[in-house]
Amino acid sequence: MAELYGGIDLGGTKIYSVVATADGQVCGEDERPTMVELGVQQSVQRMIDSLSEAARQAGVAVNKLRRVGVAAPGPINLKEGVITAAPNLGWKNVPLREMLREKLGIEVLLENDANAAALGEFEYGAARQYETLVYVTISTGIGGGFVLDGKIFSGASGAAGEIGHMTVEPDGPRCFCGSRGCLEMMASGTAIGRTGTLAVEEGRSEGLAKLADTDGRVGPEEIARAAAEGDPTANEILDEAARYIGIGLGSLINLMNPQAIVVGGGVSKIGARVLDPVIAEARRRSFPQSFGDCTISFAELGERIGALGAVAVAVRAGS
Amino acid sequence: MAELYGGIDLGGTKIYSVVATADGQVCGEDERPTMVELGVQQSVQRMIDSLSEAARQAGVAVNKLRRVGVAAPGPINLKEGVITAAPNLGWKNVPLREMLREKLGIEVLLENDANAAALGEFEYGAARQYETLVYVTISTGIGGGFVLDGKIFSGASGAAGEIGHMTVEPDGPRCFCGSRGCLEMMASGTAIGRTGTLAVEEGRSEGLAKLADTDGRVGPEEIARAAAEGDPTANEILDEAARYIGIGLGSLINLMNPQAIVVGGGVSKIGARVLDPVIAEARRRSFPQSFGDCTISFAELGERIGALGAVAVAVRAGS
Repeated sequence: MAELYGGIDLGGTKIYSVVATADGQVCGEDERPTMVELGVQQSVQRMIDSLSEAARQAGVAVNKLRRVGVAAPGPINLKEGVITAAPNLGWKNVPLREMLREKLGIEVLLENDANAAALGEFEYGAARQYETLVYVTISTGIGGGFVLDGKIFSGASGAAGEIGHMTVEPDGPRCFCGSRGCLEMMASGTAIGRTGTLAVEEGRSEGLAKLADTDGRVGPEEIARAAAEGDPTANEILDEAARYIGIGLGSLINLMNPQAIVVGGGVSKIGARVLDPVIAEARRRSFPQSFGDCTISFAELGERIGALGAVAVAVRAGS
Repeated sequence: MAELYGGIDLGGTKIYSVVATADGQVCGEDERPTMVELGVQQSVQRMIDSLSEAARQAGVAVNKLRRVGVAAPGPINLKEGVITAAPNLGWKNVPLREMLREKLGIEVLLENDANAAALGEFEYGAARQYETLVYVTISTGIGGGFVLDGKIFSGASGAAGEIGHMTVEPDGPRCFCGSRGCLEMMASGTAIGRTGTLAVEEGRSEGLAKLADTDGRVGPEEIARAAAEGDPTANEILDEAARYIGIGLGSLINLMNPQAIVVGGGVSKIGARVLDPVIAEARRRSFPQSFGDCTISFAELGERIGALGAVAVAVRAGS
């Protein structure tokens, strides 16, 4: 039997585990709530329970897995295997690698979730045939990860890839990070939802008003639906977000000359209605040769992206 | 005697050659005009004559050099050693590596000039103690190069590092590249000069008018002088350019989390008057940890940067 690896995607709301072969064939998987409100120990126990369930499905004892990778929200001290501060989890200085290693009795590797996702798409997903990949995730926030010449590039302290905090509008709205006009402020799911909700408030969109919740709020899904039904305001909102994402990707193409940009995250579910204008704007913003070198496509691994990325991290630790 | 390496910096106006040890001690050097108007063959012969003169000073026959690196304007097909199209030189599809190898009888390595400069500062200059460096050159244009985890990062086709063509002002002036508001359009020496010349034309600066040439033109040097003498318009021009450079560097810090950003090129001669506000803006635009990880300083190798970078390329080819 082929050696099996574990991968755990630790998120603020859910834990997603897989057990898979080195080439990414999933033999067992499990999803359950993180329940951060119960504290660090409980959530760590839930990670172990989740992985154990995936291992059970795969017909292997969890402590017989070759290695386990964990994709966790940053910032992380990669050298020490410590989650230094994760706003999503409310964790501070949690030595997660050691905690899991002790309980599981096997080697555990930690990686920043966006980097792990990038490596997942690189090894098993949309960028399998490439050597250099920029991964962008667009959901409530905007993040990213780089795989350059076949390796995760993390920078001086593991913080590289903060694509959401490139300036794309120098005098744009203030970002929580202290800067202004960050890509995340202009085009994340949260930003799109905020603009849509404002349009409802100001009575500028009947289509959106119909889809709003009882508080008058809309999110990216409702905006995409209204846009598909022909609502002009909803279409404008999507176009503006796509323009800023395209500006960011255009700059990345000129900077990194990647072979692939892979777009994941919840907002990518809107599909071609967003990706087409993103690609058109990126083309206008980048050198023809570099643009031509780069395939821009959606992520392929869906919900498994973080867990499979964690498997890839575990597999690589042996090479 | 230590092995000696050759490095040639091929520019549109001049050729700069050095002969140096593997640790960057210069034993001979030569500078002469490229004379592109005489054609490819003549310029290539001038490269050989220049390197031979540097070798003579070092007391070695040119064909006894261990290897020769060449820093050339791009784009370059690195695999084939061919300059595919260099607007600065007026060259198209020149197989420079083979031409030099044949005439010199020794191994020749070609590298994009900005990447070579980055490697020069990495090995022998301001970034000696770091593993990850972003090099930015600000002169008539704005370019750059990355050394990531100890290696030049060139991207899919050698075009990575086009820092001058990040969008920093989405609706800014049209750039020759087809985009709008590229960093180069907002803050290069050419851009600064253009803004200063316009101020002279419109009678908005007595200080600049005094320093203008007979056509009413000023460049970065005159603007820096007028600014130092207290001219408010000249100071505004420098502040605006510094702001855009800072926006670009802030985005780069969030993206790459580098240990160092090294700034070279003619505009860097203006000194702290430009670098201080650049650093202040970059700080406002980047995460505190990533900003703290990064030292921003001037290049140290001066006129030798390209030639010493080419030496570093030649040295590395053996490792």
